[in-house]
Amino acid sequence: MMNSFGHIFRVTTWGESHGPALGATVDGVPPGIKITPAMIQHWLDRRKPGQNKYTTQRREPDVVTILSGVYEGETTGTPVQLMIENTDQRSKDYSDIAEKFRPGHADITYWQKYGIRDPRGGGRSSARETAARVAAGGLARAVLGTLVPGIEIRGYMTRMGVHAIDRANIDWAQIDENPFWTPDAKAAETWAAYLDELRKAGSSVGAVIEVVVRGAPAGLGAPIYAKLDTDLAAAMMSINAVKGVEIGEGMGAADLTGEENADEITMGPDGPVFSSNHAGGILGGISTGQDIVARFSVKPTSSILTPRKTITRSGEPTEIVTKGRHDPCVGIRAVPVGEAMAACVILDHLLLHRAQVGDGPRGTIG
Amino acid sequence: MMNSFGHIFRVTTWGESHGPALGATVDGVPPGIKITPAMIQHWLDRRKPGQNKYTTQRREPDVVTILSGVYEGETTGTPVQLMIENTDQRSKDYSDIAEKFRPGHADITYWQKYGIRDPRGGGRSSARETAARVAAGGLARAVLGTLVPGIEIRGYMTRMGVHAIDRANIDWAQIDENPFWTPDAKAAETWAAYLDELRKAGSSVGAVIEVVVRGAPAGLGAPIYAKLDTDLAAAMMSINAVKGVEIGEGMGAADLTGEENADEITMGPDGPVFSSNHAGGILGGISTGQDIVARFSVKPTSSILTPRKTITRSGEPTEIVTKGRHDPCVGIRAVPVGEAMAACVILDHLLLHRAQVGDGPRGTIG
Amino acid sequence: MMNSFGHIFRVTTWGESHGPALGATVDGVPPGIKITPAMIQHWLDRRKPGQNKYTTQRREPDVVTILSGVYEGETTGTPVQLMIENTDQRSKDYSDIAEKFRPGHADITYWQKYGIRDPRGGGRSSARETAARVAAGGLARAVLGTLVPGIEIRGYMTRMGVHAIDRANIDWAQIDENPFWTPDAKAAETWAAYLDELRKAGSSVGAVIEVVVRGAPAGLGAPIYAKLDTDLAAAMMSINAVKGVEIGEGMGAADLTGEENADEITMGPDGPVFSSNHAGGILGGISTGQDIVARFSVKPTSSILTPRKTITRSGEPTEIVTKGRHDPCVGIRAVPVGEAMAACVILDHLLLHRAQVGDGPRGTIG
Amino acid sequence: MMNSFGHIFRVTTWGESHGPALGATVDGVPPGIKITPAMIQHWLDRRKPGQNKYTTQRREPDVVTILSGVYEGETTGTPVQLMIENTDQRSKDYSDIAEKFRPGHADITYWQKYGIRDPRGGGRSSARETAARVAAGGLARAVLGTLVPGIEIRGYMTRMGVHAIDRANIDWAQIDENPFWTPDAKAAETWAAYLDELRKAGSSVGAVIEVVVRGAPAGLGAPIYAKLDTDLAAAMMSINAVKGVEIGEGMGAADLTGEENADEITMGPDGPVFSSNHAGGILGGISTGQDIVARFSVKPTSSILTPRKTITRSGEPTEIVTKGRHDPCVGIRAVPVGEAMAACVILDHLLLHRAQVGDGPRGTIG
Repeated sequence: MMNSFGHIFRVTTWGESHGPALGATVDGVPPGIKITPAMIQHWLDRRKPGQNKYTTQRREPDVVTILSGVYEGETTGTPVQLMIENTDQRSKDYSDIAEKFRPGHADITYWQKYGIRDPRGGGRSSARETAARVAAGGLARAVLGTLVPGIEIRGYMTRMGVHAIDRANIDWAQIDENPFWTPDAKAAETWAAYLDELRKAGSSVGAVIEVVVRGAPAGLGAPIYAKLDTDLAAAMMSINAVKGVEIGEGMGAADLTGEENADEITMGPDGPVFSSNHAGGILGGISTGQDIVARFSVKPTSSILTPRKTITRSGEPTEIVTKGRHDPCVGIRAVPVGEAMAACVILDHLLLHRAQVGDGPRGTIG
Repeated sequence: MMNSFGHIFRVTTWGESHGPALGATVDGVPPGIKITPAMIQHWLDRRKPGQNKYTTQRREPDVVTILSGVYEGETTGTPVQLMIENTDQRSKDYSDIAEKFRPGHADITYWQKYGIRDPRGGGRSSARETAARVAAGGLARAVLGTLVPGIEIRGYMTRMGVHAIDRANIDWAQIDENPFWTPDAKAAETWAAYLDELRKAGSSVGAVIEVVVRGAPAGLGAPIYAKLDTDLAAAMMSINAVKGVEIGEGMGAADLTGEENADEITMGPDGPVFSSNHAGGILGGISTGQDIVARFSVKPTSSILTPRKTITRSGEPTEIVTKGRHDPCVGIRAVPVGEAMAACVILDHLLLHRAQVGDGPRGTIG
Repeated sequence: MMNSFGHIFRVTTWGESHGPALGATVDGVPPGIKITPAMIQHWLDRRKPGQNKYTTQRREPDVVTILSGVYEGETTGTPVQLMIENTDQRSKDYSDIAEKFRPGHADITYWQKYGIRDPRGGGRSSARETAARVAAGGLARAVLGTLVPGIEIRGYMTRMGVHAIDRANIDWAQIDENPFWTPDAKAAETWAAYLDELRKAGSSVGAVIEVVVRGAPAGLGAPIYAKLDTDLAAAMMSINAVKGVEIGEGMGAADLTGEENADEITMGPDGPVFSSNHAGGILGGISTGQDIVARFSVKPTSSILTPRKTITRSGEPTEIVTKGRHDPCVGIRAVPVGEAMAACVILDHLLLHRAQVGDGPRGTIG
Repeated sequence: MMNSFGHIFRVTTWGESHGPALGATVDGVPPGIKITPAMIQHWLDRRKPGQNKYTTQRREPDVVTILSGVYEGETTGTPVQLMIENTDQRSKDYSDIAEKFRPGHADITYWQKYGIRDPRGGGRSSARETAARVAAGGLARAVLGTLVPGIEIRGYMTRMGVHAIDRANIDWAQIDENPFWTPDAKAAETWAAYLDELRKAGSSVGAVIEVVVRGAPAGLGAPIYAKLDTDLAAAMMSINAVKGVEIGEGMGAADLTGEENADEITMGPDGPVFSSNHAGGILGGISTGQDIVARFSVKPTSSILTPRKTITRSGEPTEIVTKGRHDPCVGIRAVPVGEAMAACVILDHLLLHRAQVGDGPRGTIG
């Protein structure tokens, strides 16, 4: 259960960075959903490294194979195994990394916990694991596309280091037009220069990613430990390098008064309409039908060229420099991962809702 | 599973605000742990309303009864049922609340989801449910006290509305000396005046609470969806009114460079020593042995005296004013709740760790 | 999770034989289901001891109280807490039982596992725990009555000691007409004399109970570890004193050839019709729409008047005689328990099915 | 969760009979356990078809590959992916099977549930799935070998059709000496002739398999729905074609009196000694330290040469004959599967026990 996520649509990821393969075992998939490897590959390609100079120059094609659960292009209701073979495991000397603990890395904690760790490329703690999530998210999107036509799940960067976007500039059409998945074309320019500098200096920087689900029905989520925001928070926090998660106003909700925070309700032609969305589309853990807004921060990768103090396994003081092909801002590639996690959570809650309540929201208004 | 939390030490809460009782069914409790109702009552009393003018003036004694799982003052390893009877359900007219949806409340979403809701005092969505968590947390603390002598779990407020504490003033000895559970005596003064004003205006305000676990062993947590920070994020986000969760640097991690963020490691007399704690005591989802630092924001309660626009169940536009005995800053009473959730998560992971790995961390350093 | 059962309709039982109370916390209950304490009491009364000379003469009224999850006579979708107070805990000397292990009892294993046990009336291992299951089963039946009108769940005894019923005599109308819940009026006569003798001799005997679910839709159950028969087997085996579980032909399936065992299929006016039901209504773990037939054996209670050799906690050899108010054939009172477990499993799978597939079976025939 | 099994040592199987591959994703594996593909292959080879004339003549090499969770020959504590590629999917015409439902097969129920099914070789409902269990069981055995040195898990056939073994002849040394995995050499002779005849007639027959765990510590299992016998019953019933499960006396416990059934206790040099083992090594759901004895029946395969009446998907009456390479007694190959399931359950409970209670039994005797 340690590597599984979801109540009904249940994703178990497996695999290490430099083992033969990694993947996702997905249980609880509704039957009769059209799915092809290409439909999943589409999303994996967005996460793929080496697409521009701002992400790691590793060349992992990340090709997904569907090993089970699909027959003649449709899901059968049995577990879907999505496998991605690891093809770029350069035979390289990992003895340095095997001996020294990189500050800010899971090296030391895996060692302390298990007394053994796979040092090749970070093993299980590598962000490569998120490829399996993106694959599972692609499958979730296919199911959602059938069950909730018109639903949209969109992730984008809203902050890189000290540079935030200007929310007045948000234009979803811009997201795919720049290497940072940001909806603010102007920010993209600033960030390009900023990241160039950091990259050249062998440094790295953090980021904030926002994920919006548009068109999800009201009524998803359940008290108390299966609240929609609880599961979104867990989903996002489980992504590598994430240190904070917000729904709607997030940490900023602390600053508001009750008057400011209240999303007033009026009646629209298709049901309730809210004057604002401080709640991020979730009240009492249950979706309101508004945009569901989640946000998370990604810390800077600890793989940098500046030497940092550390110790060896035998407790000797030493220094470490992490050379190699690293992302100066891992937040960029976290965008499709955040989207994938949101897709999995929303679908899971849709299925959980129809388990308990049946199809659709139950209480009508008006 | 919707109202349950934890892998091994598994807490299921039940009950509504104004039903006969509420409580927590706790499974997976280690046997032979000394526990008395008074030990649990101690923590419940910290959460109890009406202790000062800054919390709701309801008078719920919140007396806990242990109905099972304890024999002659010791846990037996069978489920512990902790029940709190509701004694202050004033017979009051709830027809207004039953008809209108309070903005910012779960009224509308419970209705949309279930087509039925218990309007008395918020029913299941009431913050009264957190009493059950605090009771379970009291039990978790008793077990932790036996298994990890010296462990400390401390929650406190670091921000009320726009007023943050000065971290230079942090003094844990101050926490119990003011009605806000803040370690900054100076902030307590500012906040007293600030909250007085808000209270008189019938308004409310948000807050930030920080919870620190000191003395937890290294090695707690597990990849990928049972990371310690994943479970802490879920635990905190499941608390009523919480909109954001942070570990260590939290959302601020986005601003840092890799050099700034790296917690350098040296060797101390008892093992690794870190130069800083940006990570909040967790790397790769596993505890480092440092202080574990979690933080969450609480939105302002939506129960305010200023009229807000809303609609009725039949879709008619109307206004609502929430009179009654409400907390101007629910964040205050969220402090013991945050502590309780942290206690449950840490204990659960301690048990999960010894399930998979056996007692204690496995890889030695030095 | 150790005291919980079910995927969606999830029952957690708690409580000891002689503690203040015991009960069931039921999560995942569909909303809007009409339920009253009397509806649940109806089923509890069938399990109640002391109804005739063939069951224990304890006088537990076993009155159920609904503490949560119900508002104005309807379920709200939040956890339902069903509590039964223990009222007949005679203040009695348990020091003998606390020191000696009764052969065939859980006394020794609880001690070996936990190092502590509640000796009063068997503590958690007492069959009193099954009252909580019957209460939960009553709730499950109420939900099933709404979701699958016409469904019938019927348990009855088919064997007491060496005396089996004659299947030619089966008449469901007879089940409520005798103290043994047997559909064979003739067997009831034989058993009455047989059990009288055993009771007078202070002895006890085993039994076989069969539970039939009539009117369940096709399509319930799921591969591989959530097969309908897997969950029925777990449910029945979890009942105190059960040592064997069968579906359809059960252990006797070993004796058959493929020709004998095949339930041939023809087309009837309402869908497929089977020539026989060796399968017990389940193929590949999924219901066929036929009667679902489960069967389980109950061992004789070990509480007998004949002295048995045993040891004390300190390892001294001794003898033990279990006086007191015991059932000569606990199988009798296991009948309503078996029905309750079947109701919980069927409902749970109904909800699980609509989670994954939506309402009703999906593949049409004809 | 539908294809997962176990609380801590959690096995999820995936894959269809004629898809590219099938396998087991195993979570919760203790770290530092020596494991090689050959160690797992050893057990798979025992289940492999085509080893003698009494099993199907398909030629599946069933070669296992370890894709994750193992580094330099030791488990790392991360999920272990065990994959078996399907190599003998003859390109064959499945249109007949796709149209007609085989009596006694899951064909009709998969269709009714999902509205889609993979007809090739039975798809997910094929007994090929059990290869994944045997692989997982091989891993469980490796862990058990480290944690409980000397533990033995032995399965064998005790009945084929109407022919039972003579328990006086039981000799474990014989099990590997005949194609039926029976400990009664004499029975093996009878069965050989019996099965030859059935095979030639294109018929099939059922069987009973017994699995014994010798050397498991006392204290494994937990009330109420995680009883050791509950989980064993679920494990065995989840195996294809199983219709009955017994612990110790099993269904026969019904026939016994309390005097006959009591396993009397005396004190031996190493702890309690029982005069008999009617309980099958489990009391109150917890192991006593005696042999744990589970037993299950396997129905005859429905793939026979005698034509059986059935219907088509469009509801037309027809007949079906199942030609091809089938096992006349699938019970034979169920022996290693039963052993594997027992290994998984015992290990899982060992880990669950140390989660809650710590290492080893807690209450001492003597």
